Amino acid sequence: MEVRTRAPGKIILSGEHAVVHGSTAVAAAIDLYTRVSFRLLPPSEGDAGSVELELKDTGLAFSWPSSRLKETFSFEAIGPPLSPTPRPCSPEHSKLIASLVEEQNIPEAKIWLRSGIHAFLYLYTSIHGFKPGKVVISSELPLGSGLGSSAAFCVSLSGALLALSDAFSIDRQTKGWLELELSELELVNKWAFEGEKIIHGKPSGIDNTVSTFGSMIKFRSGELTHIRSSTPLRMLITNTKVGRNTKALVAGVSERVLKHPDAMAAVFRAVDSISKELSVIIESPTSDDVSIIAKEEKLEELMEMNQGLLQCMGVSHASIETVLRTTLKYKLASKLTGAGGGGCVLTLLPTLLSTKIVDKVIAELESCGFQCLKAEVGGKGLEVCFS
Amino acid sequence: MEVRTRAPGKIILSGEHAVVHGSTAVAAAIDLYTRVSFRLLPPSEGDAGSVELELKDTGLAFSWPSSRLKETFSFEAIGPPLSPTPRPCSPEHSKLIASLVEEQNIPEAKIWLRSGIHAFLYLYTSIHGFKPGKVVISSELPLGSGLGSSAAFCVSLSGALLALSDAFSIDRQTKGWLELELSELELVNKWAFEGEKIIHGKPSGIDNTVSTFGSMIKFRSGELTHIRSSTPLRMLITNTKVGRNTKALVAGVSERVLKHPDAMAAVFRAVDSISKELSVIIESPTSDDVSIIAKEEKLEELMEMNQGLLQCMGVSHASIETVLRTTLKYKLASKLTGAGGGGCVLTLLPTLLSTKIVDKVIAELESCGFQCLKAEVGGKGLEVCFS
Repeated sequence: MEVRTRAPGKIILSGEHAVVHGSTAVAAAIDLYTRVSFRLLPPSEGDAGSVELELKDTGLAFSWPSSRLKETFSFEAIGPPLSPTPRPCSPEHSKLIASLVEEQNIPEAKIWLRSGIHAFLYLYTSIHGFKPGKVVISSELPLGSGLGSSAAFCVSLSGALLALSDAFSIDRQTKGWLELELSELELVNKWAFEGEKIIHGKPSGIDNTVSTFGSMIKFRSGELTHIRSSTPLRMLITNTKVGRNTKALVAGVSERVLKHPDAMAAVFRAVDSISKELSVIIESPTSDDVSIIAKEEKLEELMEMNQGLLQCMGVSHASIETVLRTTLKYKLASKLTGAGGGGCVLTLLPTLLSTKIVDKVIAELESCGFQCLKAEVGGKGLEVCFS
Repeated sequence: MEVRTRAPGKIILSGEHAVVHGSTAVAAAIDLYTRVSFRLLPPSEGDAGSVELELKDTGLAFSWPSSRLKETFSFEAIGPPLSPTPRPCSPEHSKLIASLVEEQNIPEAKIWLRSGIHAFLYLYTSIHGFKPGKVVISSELPLGSGLGSSAAFCVSLSGALLALSDAFSIDRQTKGWLELELSELELVNKWAFEGEKIIHGKPSGIDNTVSTFGSMIKFRSGELTHIRSSTPLRMLITNTKVGRNTKALVAGVSERVLKHPDAMAAVFRAVDSISKELSVIIESPTSDDVSIIAKEEKLEELMEMNQGLLQCMGVSHASIETVLRTTLKYKLASKLTGAGGGGCVLTLLPTLLSTKIVDKVIAELESCGFQCLKAEVGGKGLEVCFS
């Protein structure tokens, strides 16, 4: 039996950086997915089989003989599989996994894959022990550009692994995409968070939560509230492809806070108001085109304001400004999303905007060397399909 | 006897727009001047002579026979010249002046000169009655771009007219540029403010005060504090030449305040903090290159922050963004100055910046069709010279 899962990426609609300093932020799922297919392989006679991982987008595949895994992990080191509460990866376990990752032939240019493979081995062995199986992963999300690709990786992977485990009591005969029960989603989310910790060190937990549950989430000081958009929202996501150092950007804002405490406190209050207003607007019902246009105009104004405040925090970048200028020519509102300093920029695509204009904007942005992705915002979270 | 005066233009270093909503702002004089030369003409026999005005930059000259002025203004209509406190131009007086302006042949394309000529006639006849005289005015300040050209016009003109009147008891034999006594400057400032009212309707009084007294002024809710920079500050002023509708921009910000009261209140608080910090930094002593560099870096950061907040208020413009992007390439900080929506952009020129780089930036900005002016900031106000 094979299971396929898909888990969405995310964008920050408002409040990035300010959230670190106590402001409200809003994140939303986007219909760009990481997809996993997983099947357990029956061991053939005289061969204990292997655990295989294929990363389609990189053209790389990895394989660990089950016997090798069994020999590496003693039961004591990793504990019983599928404990009711997912555990953090212990230092001992981590060390053993690291040695398994080292053995693989990862090209120097793709050395960043290491932490993802590490997370894979942790999740796989925690949930399925040494059972042979094959996992294939592909993604529509650009990596490392703030769209939650690692969370979508961990969620889709955890979802697939759990879907074929005893932890889930789903009817595996149902055809088509299924949404999971709340308790099942919660379990996936917890495992995915453990994976995120391996990849990111100290993730906020927002990315995996949005990817698991979908829709939108308002969060502040660790408190999460699910919100649901009453109308579909379309965004153009422009990946500037400029790599950022998120830690340095976060540190830069903190330094600015030390230097200008009063001004920056006021800036964060402004961002907090914007996020709160945004979430109210998103949830407010729309009945006709007029109310949709009014809603979109409000969102555009809030995006423009948030972008100004991000510039005030010093996290914009020449590439981001280029996107802003280009979309402004078409009277479209944009803001950076995530850490800034490059990365991705959001542009609201109003419902009544003609496809012709959208195509023109995209062509112009792509001619600057950027990558453009169109996305529906606030859609479904993790889904599962058996075949 | 001829008197020459020069009065500087001004820039807003921080706080534009926010000042309307109660925040602190800082304005400074720049060493770009409006110059006036004035002499009284002795009437020749049988001819009462004329009051002549030459506007050198426009190539236009105007003339009113003294007899015509005498016949137009009855003593009752305009009151005694040189009353101790300058009076606002009464509606009756204004009507009479308007008829005198109408009679002049002002080209359609320069119809905006009308209010300046109106102010000229008001100041001239209020201070010198119908005495024949010749005033020549020229300016280094681009008109209508937020650099206080009309205030510099009113201050230099009022200064020249008063310098040859009985109101001033200066030694007219001294050679070279003279600074006036405080009480004399105050009188000039009051007359200039009346001129500004004719040109602008409801001026804030900041522009004429900066032009008269020079240096820098911190102001909030009508309260003015003079501040003095401890080190010279150099700015590149880029005139985008994009005409703005100041009233519409101010109204746009107010509309945003109505729509997002909490967020905008926080934004104005942030601007208030920035202006206060800026004025402290400006006054702080610098002893060596290291402390000058540190000071300039702080000012650059505050400029960048203020610009972000102005973008948050929605008063930036594509032309302004072009200037920002261009100067950012050279790691120079910029912000719009004045109303925004076009107009002028300030770029701090650090003391240790090489002339070569400055020339390169200017060349690049001028190739975009902008006008670049280099200015020393916070220098002298009105000066007078007899010859």
